[in-house]
Amino acid sequence: MGAKFLDKLEKKLEELSAYLKTIEHYRNVGSLMYWDMTTGMPENAAEGRAETMSFMQMQAHNLSVSKEIHDFIKFFEKNEEKLDFVQKRMVHELKKNYEKEKIFPEEFIKEFSLAASRGQLAWEKAKNEDNFEIFKPDLEKIVELTKKSIKYKGYKGNKYNALLDDYEPGLTVEKLDKVFDELRDGIVNILKKINNSGTEISNVFEGKEFPKENQKRFCIKILKTMGFDFKSGRMDETEHPYTLDMSNKDVRITNHYYLNDFTSAMFSAIHEGGHGIYEQNIPDYLEGTGLNVAASMAIHESQSRFYENIIGRNKSFCGYLYEEAKKEFPNQFEFINEEEFYNTINKVQPSLIRTEADELTYSIHVIIRYEIEKLLINDKIQVADLPRVWNEKYKEYLGIEPTSDKVGVLQDMHWSDGSFGYFPSYALGNLYGAQMLNEMVKDIPNIYDEIATGDLSSVYEWLKENVHEYANLYDPSDLIKRITGEELQAKYFIEYLDKKYKEIYNY
Amino acid sequence: MGAKFLDKLEKKLEELSAYLKTIEHYRNVGSLMYWDMTTGMPENAAEGRAETMSFMQMQAHNLSVSKEIHDFIKFFEKNEEKLDFVQKRMVHELKKNYEKEKIFPEEFIKEFSLAASRGQLAWEKAKNEDNFEIFKPDLEKIVELTKKSIKYKGYKGNKYNALLDDYEPGLTVEKLDKVFDELRDGIVNILKKINNSGTEISNVFEGKEFPKENQKRFCIKILKTMGFDFKSGRMDETEHPYTLDMSNKDVRITNHYYLNDFTSAMFSAIHEGGHGIYEQNIPDYLEGTGLNVAASMAIHESQSRFYENIIGRNKSFCGYLYEEAKKEFPNQFEFINEEEFYNTINKVQPSLIRTEADELTYSIHVIIRYEIEKLLINDKIQVADLPRVWNEKYKEYLGIEPTSDKVGVLQDMHWSDGSFGYFPSYALGNLYGAQMLNEMVKDIPNIYDEIATGDLSSVYEWLKENVHEYANLYDPSDLIKRITGEELQAKYFIEYLDKKYKEIYNY
Repeated sequence: MGAKFLDKLEKKLEELSAYLKTIEHYRNVGSLMYWDMTTGMPENAAEGRAETMSFMQMQAHNLSVSKEIHDFIKFFEKNEEKLDFVQKRMVHELKKNYEKEKIFPEEFIKEFSLAASRGQLAWEKAKNEDNFEIFKPDLEKIVELTKKSIKYKGYKGNKYNALLDDYEPGLTVEKLDKVFDELRDGIVNILKKINNSGTEISNVFEGKEFPKENQKRFCIKILKTMGFDFKSGRMDETEHPYTLDMSNKDVRITNHYYLNDFTSAMFSAIHEGGHGIYEQNIPDYLEGTGLNVAASMAIHESQSRFYENIIGRNKSFCGYLYEEAKKEFPNQFEFINEEEFYNTINKVQPSLIRTEADELTYSIHVIIRYEIEKLLINDKIQVADLPRVWNEKYKEYLGIEPTSDKVGVLQDMHWSDGSFGYFPSYALGNLYGAQMLNEMVKDIPNIYDEIATGDLSSVYEWLKENVHEYANLYDPSDLIKRITGEELQAKYFIEYLDKKYKEIYNY
Repeated sequence: MGAKFLDKLEKKLEELSAYLKTIEHYRNVGSLMYWDMTTGMPENAAEGRAETMSFMQMQAHNLSVSKEIHDFIKFFEKNEEKLDFVQKRMVHELKKNYEKEKIFPEEFIKEFSLAASRGQLAWEKAKNEDNFEIFKPDLEKIVELTKKSIKYKGYKGNKYNALLDDYEPGLTVEKLDKVFDELRDGIVNILKKINNSGTEISNVFEGKEFPKENQKRFCIKILKTMGFDFKSGRMDETEHPYTLDMSNKDVRITNHYYLNDFTSAMFSAIHEGGHGIYEQNIPDYLEGTGLNVAASMAIHESQSRFYENIIGRNKSFCGYLYEEAKKEFPNQFEFINEEEFYNTINKVQPSLIRTEADELTYSIHVIIRYEIEKLLINDKIQVADLPRVWNEKYKEYLGIEPTSDKVGVLQDMHWSDGSFGYFPSYALGNLYGAQMLNEMVKDIPNIYDEIATGDLSSVYEWLKENVHEYANLYDPSDLIKRITGEELQAKYFIEYLDKKYKEIYNY
C-alpha cells in the first residue's frame, strides 16, 4: 500500500474521531443536565428539562446509528489489517454498539421509552403507597417489551443471556449460575457460623448526632486520601449518591448525609470515590475513540466496592479512619475505641433492604434478584407472582421476611425502567474485587502496613495500572484474565469473607 | 381562502414553533454550561467545556441561518395578511435575526470569535499586570473587525448606529446624544450642588463584619419579598453577580459576598432579582415564537435598576430593609439608626470604578464610555489614545483622575470581546426606570406607604403588566411609548435624582 492510501486511512481515522467527539458533546450535556436536575434544579423547570434532555439524547442516538457510522465501519473492516490494536478495538466496539442500537425499530424504541417513563412514575407511586398492584400493569408491559427486545437481539442458550450481555459483555447464565451458586452457598454458610458464634456486636453510634458540615469536610478529607482529584471533580448532595462523568477531567460524585450516622456518608463517599477515581484515570489518548469508558458495569462496581469494603472496612485502614473521625467528631468519639468502631462498621445483620446491607449479606440480595429475573424472563413465573417469590427467597436465604412490598419487591427502581440484567453487576463487582486483591497483595506485600497509616498510594497506582488505564480496551472476561490469570471466580471472595468474619465473630 | 389553506398555515406555524424550540434546546444547554462553569466546575474541565459550548453554539447558529428558516420567512411573508399580531411580530423578528446573522461570511464570524477569545485573555493579563500595552494589539484587531462588521451591516447616519441597534433596536446616535447630553449636564449640576452643600456622610458599616451565611439568608429573604420565585429559580455564588435563564421556569441569579459590607450582596441580589423577575414573568404562550425574551438590554436594565435604586435605595423601603437587616445582624446594627443606614447606602462619592459607583454618578461612567466608543468607531481617536482620552474625561466630568489603567481604561471586559454599543444600555435603564416610576405613582398613589411595610406586590404587578408580559412584542421605543405615552426622556430621571439628593444633602 502506498503513502497515498495511508494518508486516506489517517484522514478517515481523524474524521471518525471528530464524529465520535460530536456524540460525546451530546452525552456531556446530557450528563450535566442530569447532574443539575438532581442537585438543585428549580422544581418548575422539570418539564422543560425533560424535553431538552430527550432532544439531546435523540441527537446522540441518531448520530450513533447514522449512515456515516455504517460507512466508517465498512471502510475500516475492509482495511482491518492496517489498524493497530486500539483502532481494531475501536472499530469492534463501534460495530457492536451500532448493531445494538440499530436492531430495534424506531417504533419499538419509542414504545419502550414511554413504558419506562410510565413505569418509573407508577413504581414511585406504588412504593409510596406500599401497593404492588399500582405498579403491576406497567411492570407487565415492561416485561413484555423486554422479552420482545430479546427476540430482536437474538441469543444463545438462555434467553437471559441477551440481557446479561448489555451490562457484562460475554457473560452467560451457564457461567454465572455456577459462580452465584457457589457464592450463595458460601455466604449462607458463613452466616450460619456467625449466628452460631453467639457473638453480639452493638452499634456504638446509636443516639449520637453528626453535623452535616463536619460530615462533608470529613468525606472530602477521605476522598483526598484516596487520590480523588478535586481539580477534575467535585462532590455534591443528592437524594441517592451516584457518580457521573463528563470526561476524565470532570467527574462528579454525590453524597447523602444522615445526621445520626456519619458512616453512611463516609462509605458512600469511599464507594463513589472508587467509581470516580476509575473515571479520572481513563487515559487521555482514548478520547474520541469511544473506548474512554469503563470495561463494564461490574468492573466499575469492583472498583467502588474495593474501596468501600476491602479498603474501607479493613482492620488496618480502620485505624486511620478511626483517628481521622475522632479529630472531626471529638465529642461523639469520646467513649468509642478503635475496636468498637471496627466492629460496628462490620456488624452482620440480615436485613430487608439491599442498599443498607452489610458486606456479607449484600450479595445475597443481588442473587435473589438475579434468580427472580431469570424465572420471569423464561416464563417460569409471572409478574403477579413476584411479591410471593421475593418473600420466599428472603425467608430461605436470609431467614427474614418482608413485612410489606415497600421493603420487599418494590424497594429498587431498576425494573421500573426496564434495567433487567443489571443487578448481577453489583455482586460481580465483589468477586472481581476480591480476585484483584488476591493479586495485589502479591505485588505489594506490605499493603496493610501502608494503608494503616492512611497511605493509599500503592493501591491507587496498582488499580490505575491494572484496571483503570485499560478503560474499554478489553471485554471484562479478558481483563480479569490479564490481571489475575484466571476467569471470574467466587472462591477468592468467599475466602476473604470467611477469614474476616472468623476473626470478628470468633467462630 | 379555504379551510384547506388555513390548515396549511396552521401546520407551518406548528413546524416553525417546533423548529424554534429546537434552537432553544441548544441555547438552554449553552446557558446551563455557562452557569456551571462559573459556579464551581472543576478547573481541569475548562478546555473540554469550551469545546462543547462552542459546538452547541454553532448548532444553534446553523439552525438560525438555515435554508429552513429562509423558507419559513418566505412562506409567512407571502401570507402576512393572514397572521395575527403575535405571529406578525414573530416573523418580523425571525427575519431580522436571520439577516443579522446571515450577513457575515462564515470566515468573518470565525475570525471575530477567535479575536474575541484572544482579546479576553489579553485583557485579563493586561488588567492583572496593569499594562495597557499588553491589550493594545488585540484591541486594535477587535476594533478593526468591529468597523468591518459595520460595513457588512450597513448603517444610516452615524456608523455607531449599527452597533447601537444590536442592543437597543431603533435607537440612533442622533437621538441618544441629545438625551445623554441632558443627562450628563443634569448629573454634573447635582454633583456641584452636593459638593457645595458641605454635608458629609460617613459609612456606618466601616470596621464591621457580616458572615456569609447570614448575608445569603438575608438576600433570599429580600428576594422573596420582591416576588422572585424560588420554585422557578435559584441563587448561587460567582465572582461577578449575573442573571441567566433557561426558560421562565429556570432563572438563575448569582451573587458575591464581601465580609465587610453586606449591602454589596444585598443590592446585587435586588438588582439581579429585578432581572430575574422580568424573566420569570415572560408569558408561557410565547414559548416557541422566539419572542419570549426581553425587549432590549436597556429595558432589562431598567428592571434591575428600578428594583436596586428606585425601590432598594428609597427612603420608605429603607425602613423595611433596616428592620430586616437589624434582625439578621443584631450586633452589627446595635449603634446604627435608620437614617444613618439610609444615608450610607445613598452616599455620593465620585469614584473610578463603574461597578462601584453610587446611583448619581453611575450614569457618568456610562456616558464616558459611550463618547469614547463613538470617537473610536468614527476614527476620531485611535486605540493608542484610549488611556489618555479616558483619563481626561474622568477629570472633566467627575473631577478625579485614574491613578493607573487598571482602575481606568482596563476596568471593564466589554471591549475585550467586541461588545461595542452595549454600555449605553446601563444608563438607558436608569432613564426608562424613572420614566416608568413617573407613570407608576399615578396608578398606585400610595406606593410609598406600601413599600414602607415591605409590601412590593403592587410594584411587582405593575411591572409585570406593563413591561414583563410584553416580552419582545414591541421594540423598546414603542414599549416605552405604550407605557408612558412619551419617547425616551432624561428629565424624569434628573428630576428624581434632584429631589432625592436635595433632601439627603440639604442643598
